Amino acid sequence: MNSEMIKEKLRKFAADRNWDVYHSPKNLCMALSIETSELMEHFQWLTENESQIIMNDPEKASEIKDEMADVYLYLMRLADKLDVDLDYQALIKLKKNAVKYPVELSKDNAKKYTEFH
Amino acid sequence: MNSEMIKEKLRKFAADRNWDVYHSPKNLCMALSIETSELMEHFQWLTENESQIIMNDPEKASEIKDEMADVYLYLMRLADKLDVDLDYQALIKLKKNAVKYPVELSKDNAKKYTEFH
Amino acid sequence: MNSEMIKEKLRKFAADRNWDVYHSPKNLCMALSIETSELMEHFQWLTENESQIIMNDPEKASEIKDEMADVYLYLMRLADKLDVDLDYQALIKLKKNAVKYPVELSKDNAKKYTEFH
Amino acid sequence: MNSEMIKEKLRKFAADRNWDVYHSPKNLCMALSIETSELMEHFQWLTENESQIIMNDPEKASEIKDEMADVYLYLMRLADKLDVDLDYQALIKLKKNAVKYPVELSKDNAKKYTEFH
Repeated sequence: MNSEMIKEKLRKFAADRNWDVYHSPKNLCMALSIETSELMEHFQWLTENESQIIMNDPEKASEIKDEMADVYLYLMRLADKLDVDLDYQALIKLKKNAVKYPVELSKDNAKKYTEFH
Repeated sequence: MNSEMIKEKLRKFAADRNWDVYHSPKNLCMALSIETSELMEHFQWLTENESQIIMNDPEKASEIKDEMADVYLYLMRLADKLDVDLDYQALIKLKKNAVKYPVELSKDNAKKYTEFH
Repeated sequence: MNSEMIKEKLRKFAADRNWDVYHSPKNLCMALSIETSELMEHFQWLTENESQIIMNDPEKASEIKDEMADVYLYLMRLADKLDVDLDYQALIKLKKNAVKYPVELSKDNAKKYTEFH
Repeated sequence: MNSEMIKEKLRKFAADRNWDVYHSPKNLCMALSIETSELMEHFQWLTENESQIIMNDPEKASEIKDEMADVYLYLMRLADKLDVDLDYQALIKLKKNAVKYPVELSKDNAKKYTEFH
């Protein structure tokens, strides 16, 4: 399955239920933000080390995958509504980032990282 | 460009800068949430109707595409760290949603929508 | 009840349960963000007009008050941990905003508003 | 300065600029969520230990106080619009939490904490 297929499935899903009226870009942004928050909820009280091994817990792993799918689907839905090609934009952004964060300035420089971002 | 290529580019980008130490799943979740918020910022004071036509403004459109790329890239980075296949998870979630929100119960029923979600 | 009393109650609540170890400023920030998202969830599919009258629904009103209390409590807890006097900071910020958004430039100027913020 | 004074100042501030039209509860919720995210941004790449001492950096401390004031002010503004008494709701919520998380079950039980919340 690729992006175009997902977008088409989401389009049909919303059309079948007359849900397009709810899917303004403003509302889809809110939904996307809320879903990332639900994903973050699984990590909020864990240490960073605990977060590294969370997927070893099958129940937690299943919930996290489910939340990530929600984030992905709302992002796709928004991209469809705003006519944005995410793969193309990602490529452009990766090139921008390579210029913004040059290796020689960024490497071995933890402090820089937090100031950069 | 596909998901696997993006993940590989992100992996190399972080490795070149010794940034893996920052990229715990916990931190990547926070970053993802913050990026969705920056995206939402473009929509917060717009009406829903205004949000439908925001991409007609080239400057705004460029900023929004940029923020969407950030969301997409952090989601991919997290998916790579947690070994999650987003396209596959999206497919599973779409099937779950079809069961959870049956057409006959959901159609023409605005109130239901808000209670469903 | 005033801020100092709330902070003291939160301090005792966490101490009684040995929860201070979880309440790093980093984690409290995440919790605060997650709670605002849970609050926002009640509004995501409403129109702005519907959001104006949501408190007429007693069940919804009760849930919204509950979420707002969560946001308030986590903000107080964080303020306590970081030794921030919120009322004083609010006063300073209000003064800054009065300079940043002068009445004559801001009034009757919807477009400006979205650019200002 | 107390809550009532802050609410009154915010009311006048918005009225003077004809900004009430933007301040639907829906929009204020979004603004609140975005501000908490801007606050969280200061903590995203820090370790929990680093987050404990961030206020020793005067520049960072100033920025964090500023963001916390923004969160506080939008929460107050929303509370005013929805006619919610935050101090009273906080008291009720503290009592609910005391029942929900009994000391004897919660103490010395890290695992429980993450499951509780």
